[in-house]
Amino acid sequence: MATLIEITDAGDPRLGDYRDLRDVQLRKSLESEHGLFLAEGEKVVRRAVESGHAPRSFLMAPRWIEGLKDVLHTTDAPCYVLSEELAEEVTGFHVHRGALASLHRIPTPPVAEVIQNARSVLVLEDVVDHTNVGAIFRSGAAMGFDAVLLSPRCADPLYRRSIKVAMGAVFTMPWARIEDWYDAMPHLSEAGFTTIALTLADDATPIEEAVAGVDKVALVLGSEGPGISERWQRSADKRAIIPMAEGIDSLNVAAASAVACYVAARR
Amino acid sequence: MATLIEITDAGDPRLGDYRDLRDVQLRKSLESEHGLFLAEGEKVVRRAVESGHAPRSFLMAPRWIEGLKDVLHTTDAPCYVLSEELAEEVTGFHVHRGALASLHRIPTPPVAEVIQNARSVLVLEDVVDHTNVGAIFRSGAAMGFDAVLLSPRCADPLYRRSIKVAMGAVFTMPWARIEDWYDAMPHLSEAGFTTIALTLADDATPIEEAVAGVDKVALVLGSEGPGISERWQRSADKRAIIPMAEGIDSLNVAAASAVACYVAARR
Repeated sequence: MATLIEITDAGDPRLGDYRDLRDVQLRKSLESEHGLFLAEGEKVVRRAVESGHAPRSFLMAPRWIEGLKDVLHTTDAPCYVLSEELAEEVTGFHVHRGALASLHRIPTPPVAEVIQNARSVLVLEDVVDHTNVGAIFRSGAAMGFDAVLLSPRCADPLYRRSIKVAMGAVFTMPWARIEDWYDAMPHLSEAGFTTIALTLADDATPIEEAVAGVDKVALVLGSEGPGISERWQRSADKRAIIPMAEGIDSLNVAAASAVACYVAARR
Repeated sequence: MATLIEITDAGDPRLGDYRDLRDVQLRKSLESEHGLFLAEGEKVVRRAVESGHAPRSFLMAPRWIEGLKDVLHTTDAPCYVLSEELAEEVTGFHVHRGALASLHRIPTPPVAEVIQNARSVLVLEDVVDHTNVGAIFRSGAAMGFDAVLLSPRCADPLYRRSIKVAMGAVFTMPWARIEDWYDAMPHLSEAGFTTIALTLADDATPIEEAVAGVDKVALVLGSEGPGISERWQRSADKRAIIPMAEGIDSLNVAAASAVACYVAARR
């Protein structure tokens, strides 16, 4: 059972993991330096623990303890109990969903391991927005995709905002960081995948045609602004487009991924 | 040509339209009371004006004037010119994209007018998140939908955040507020539409089947948490689902709308 520790001072050094949650830059360095991530809300905290992430600690107002009793029973980590006002002072925002947990990251597996038994994978190049990364994980999971691969510059799926938007899919969906950006497409082709880059290029074929009859598919999505790099577009097996109404530039990357995953799931 | 007026005092009363842009509650009441809305960024400002919204005023740092010269030439509204630091002081946030404009709202047309020549319409019930409303407009426009109808409690498509996410689609896509919530579905059916409610109900048919062969379609999407109300679910002509992987609760409403619009566009 987690040890309940009452906190009455917002400056208590034991609360270091929970400081200034709205300061993205500070959180990024703090979380990567200490190998931790934050889960917010009863549902997400439960999913994080159940998916095998060891808690470092919990932080919550008294009224949330009962609902998470079963989770707290599985660990020896401390549970800091404090008023909602104090929690707001520490974290810098109103903790809507009551409970927070700080958890140890699990080292991400190599790409080869993640794609070994996969039939459908999503590959993201430089998607830098946490909301988009979370939304793409959620849609990919809903459409039965098996894994997500992230280019080195993609936003962190275990950042609080990504987790929240993904509704926990970042815990259940296997994912890995691509180390060799330059040869990412040929490596996937060698592993038996047909790499299909979503693009607005003139020679792109409609996504439905591009996925037809393909066995192992790697759907590639680019960053919010410039889309997929020249290198990846040229080294992908196919370039595909989601047909759009005349005069429309493009879909948001999260919307595009939902549509592309839906179509690919029906190939 | 707009009159350029140099501003050196953040408290200048002429800047009332631009105060505290991060305060959602304050902005909501200010904008509805005065029948105005805010556009942010050169591209969005241009689209807002070009779509026929009369500017009340503009606010920008000197370096943005050149890029919007053609737009400023079309109006007599004042253009307040001030430093970026002062702009931040007034608005309460860093104005990334430089230019702001305050514009007069155009009275929204009645539902009957908006659907008169439409073949595909989106109907949103109580989608309260501005980001979701904006994303749904953008996807609907991309998929060639003709109009959007909003239940009385839906978030404002002309709120700054909605406009930004929609990439201006809120200006070009006709939309209207539904006044009679209770009979919204039967009214659409009487107007010749097949109303299809996106739901997780047990008797829902896959969306592809639901739209097959349908001429005039009204795709109905529900609020972020509880989905579509009982009343609308029961009074819609069909209930449809986007097939999902086992164990997944649901898609985000913006992702669901993108998929549903894509499928409906191919009916």
